[in-house]
Amino acid sequence: MRKISVIGIGAGDPDQLTVQAIREIERARVFFVLDKGEAKRDLVALREGILAKYGRDHRVVHAQDPPRDRQPEDYRAAVAEWHRLRVTLYARLIRDELPDDGHGAFLVWGDPALYDSTITLVEAVSRELDLDYSVIPGVSSVSTLAARHRIPLNRIGEPVQFTTGRRLAEDRPGDAVVLLDANCTFQRYYGEDLEIFWGAYLGTPDEILLSGPLAEIGPEIERRRAEARAEKGWIMDTYLLRSRP
Amino acid sequence: MRKISVIGIGAGDPDQLTVQAIREIERARVFFVLDKGEAKRDLVALREGILAKYGRDHRVVHAQDPPRDRQPEDYRAAVAEWHRLRVTLYARLIRDELPDDGHGAFLVWGDPALYDSTITLVEAVSRELDLDYSVIPGVSSVSTLAARHRIPLNRIGEPVQFTTGRRLAEDRPGDAVVLLDANCTFQRYYGEDLEIFWGAYLGTPDEILLSGPLAEIGPEIERRRAEARAEKGWIMDTYLLRSRP
Repeated sequence: MRKISVIGIGAGDPDQLTVQAIREIERARVFFVLDKGEAKRDLVALREGILAKYGRDHRVVHAQDPPRDRQPEDYRAAVAEWHRLRVTLYARLIRDELPDDGHGAFLVWGDPALYDSTITLVEAVSRELDLDYSVIPGVSSVSTLAARHRIPLNRIGEPVQFTTGRRLAEDRPGDAVVLLDANCTFQRYYGEDLEIFWGAYLGTPDEILLSGPLAEIGPEIERRRAEARAEKGWIMDTYLLRSRP
Repeated sequence: MRKISVIGIGAGDPDQLTVQAIREIERARVFFVLDKGEAKRDLVALREGILAKYGRDHRVVHAQDPPRDRQPEDYRAAVAEWHRLRVTLYARLIRDELPDDGHGAFLVWGDPALYDSTITLVEAVSRELDLDYSVIPGVSSVSTLAARHRIPLNRIGEPVQFTTGRRLAEDRPGDAVVLLDANCTFQRYYGEDLEIFWGAYLGTPDEILLSGPLAEIGPEIERRRAEARAEKGWIMDTYLLRSRP
């Protein structure tokens, strides 16, 4: 039976790999690398650095993720259609590139359980192809954000919501970790007494960290984010937004 | 200046250590191990296994965490008082056991940013003693739960709340990851159409995983949890509770 490992590789620093992840990388023979376009070329290069160091007798299969409509009229329908295209692609890659008894792997930034679709895609493929898959957890970008700011994500005994920029635009759910926010949605809350802990390119040499009262530091985050994005061609960032003590 | 590292060591499997964490363990010379009473003796033993393997020329300082009132009249006041006692203890340990230029460390299960007080305690000590501290993120028990069940924590683009058993008793906040629930608070929601993904002793040889429709599997989780707890003398567990698709 084909075997697929979905391996969390941490937030950007290769030293965030766990011993478990390294062992799994040593065992897998085919790595599927889905390139999301030019903007993420640096991230593909980082993955290749990890494979050059830990891969054993392996082969890398590159493919291009299907393009995605970023301004769809119907957001849910567009996500569902994109998901369908990706399942088809992943199934084809695994069927064509992995022998029947082969061991393939996907390297996932951060932790595969948080705002990443690889597990869902591989699960969908497993309904079409006979395959056994497993997940190796990783250090998430959110854990890295908190570590670099030296703060806990939650206040003692209190909840913290993990959410997206899109959902934050509708409603601020108390203390919140925000991911996938391309629009600096925190802007909407400058009028509230909040603090923000922001990080971009976490775990990499380009890491940027900013924190402080939201109304004071928010505009600086907007500016630095736009500059860094223009300079590098892409940005990955996340932040904790919470009421001030 | 004294240096303190707060090191996330993963959810229970020593192979969840990151390369970064191993390097930091190799560098530190004094490890502070706070024993929370007999129930957690196994966890202390696991920590000692890690130190035996990766520690270099190091010393372990054991101390007993102050006792905590588990049934206080005023929950917040009791937490604050317990926190104060712990800051005093941690400050004393660091002052007495770590030379002025020494490098000490705390090994924290899972990720130090999630429902763990070590960062907050060390930060409080740093206001009394001159010290430089840093945090090494780890793989959380929550990431491990999701990996073992091979599920993402969030649905595509949707939020997920991290919360405690205590807070879940007041209100169910949509899809929720529940930590620190000694009372099987999920019982309260048997009447709703939910599913649960539960895990105990995650990452250890004693790991137990159960999942399914809440009303069906909930009573079995209650039973298995009580049995395991009675047999081992302690339990650490966590779960994801969410509406059924």
